[in-house]
Amino acid sequence: MTATADAFKAAFRRHPAGVAIVVGEGEAGPVGITASSVASVSAAPPMLSFSLARGGASAGVIAGSERIAVMLLTTGHKGLAESFARSGGDRFTPDQPWRHSPDALPVVEGAAAVLHGSVTRVVPAGDSWLVLVTVDDVVLGEAGDPLVYHDRRWWTPAELREEALAAPDAEA
Amino acid sequence: MTATADAFKAAFRRHPAGVAIVVGEGEAGPVGITASSVASVSAAPPMLSFSLARGGASAGVIAGSERIAVMLLTTGHKGLAESFARSGGDRFTPDQPWRHSPDALPVVEGAAAVLHGSVTRVVPAGDSWLVLVTVDDVVLGEAGDPLVYHDRRWWTPAELREEALAAPDAEA
Repeated sequence: MTATADAFKAAFRRHPAGVAIVVGEGEAGPVGITASSVASVSAAPPMLSFSLARGGASAGVIAGSERIAVMLLTTGHKGLAESFARSGGDRFTPDQPWRHSPDALPVVEGAAAVLHGSVTRVVPAGDSWLVLVTVDDVVLGEAGDPLVYHDRRWWTPAELREEALAAPDAEA
Repeated sequence: MTATADAFKAAFRRHPAGVAIVVGEGEAGPVGITASSVASVSAAPPMLSFSLARGGASAGVIAGSERIAVMLLTTGHKGLAESFARSGGDRFTPDQPWRHSPDALPVVEGAAAVLHGSVTRVVPAGDSWLVLVTVDDVVLGEAGDPLVYHDRRWWTPAELREEALAAPDAEA
C-alpha cells in the first residue's frame, strides 16, 4: 500500500479548516503566510501548531523568528488570505488592513483573534516543518463570520440542516 | 503579558475545524477519539498531525499504537463525533456505522476519507502530545457535506455570501 501525494491531497480537500495569517520577522522585515493548518495543541501552557512548506520563501524566516503573531481571519479577510497564500502576492501594502507598530509585529485589523508567542520547537516532517508556538498574549477582536478553506475555495460555517429544520423559522 | 488558558480557548472557539475520528489499537482492542486538530503536514511523504490531551484515557493507547486510522467525517456522523468526544460515550457499538475487519482497525462507514498510517513521532507539548503520522494508504469515500466544529457546536461549510449573490440562483 502506498499513498500517493495526489490521493492524500484529495482526502484533505475534504477536510475544512479555519484560516489564519502567520507573521514572523527576519532581518529584512516582517514576512507572512496564509495557513490552514493552525491548531490548538495545549491549553496550559497555551500552545498552537502550524505547518510550513519548506520550499516557501517565507517559511525559513517564520521558522527562525523569535516572535510570531497568528491572526484568525473572518470572511472580510478573504482577499488578504488570497494575497498571503500566493507566492509573489501583495504583502503588507497600504491598501491591506494591517496595523503596524514600531516595536511589535504587524497585525491584521479586524481579526477574530490575535495570538502572540514564541517558536518553541520546529519539527522536520517530510517536505514541511511542523512549528510549535507557545502563546503568551491573546487579543480577542470582533467575532465575525470565520473564514474557512475547503476544497480549494473559501467558505464560512453554516448551521447543520437538521438544526435549521428544528428552528421555528426554518421554512423562511 | 500572560495568556490565560481561558483567553486562548476563547480564541480557538473562533477557529473552525474539520472533524475526524482517530482510531488506534491497544492490547484491550481498538480505541478512538474525536479530533478537531487533524491537519495535513506534508504531501511527500504524506504526513498528518493531530493533538491528544495527555489526561485522556484513550490518548496513551493512540500515541502508542503501531497503526492509526483517521476518518474525515461528514454531517451524517454528528452523533458518532459526539459519542467519541465524550469520556464514557458509546464506542464501537453495533448501532454505530463501523466496519470491522479481523486484520485491520475498524473504520467509519461513509467517511469522506480514511487515512491509514503509522505513528512517526510523538512530541510532548504542554498538557498534550502532538502526534505525527506517516500515511501509507488513502481510501476516498463519498464526499458529502463535511462536519465542522466551531464555537462548541457542529456546522458545515457554506458559500460566502458574496459568491452566493453572484450566482444566478442566489434569490432562491
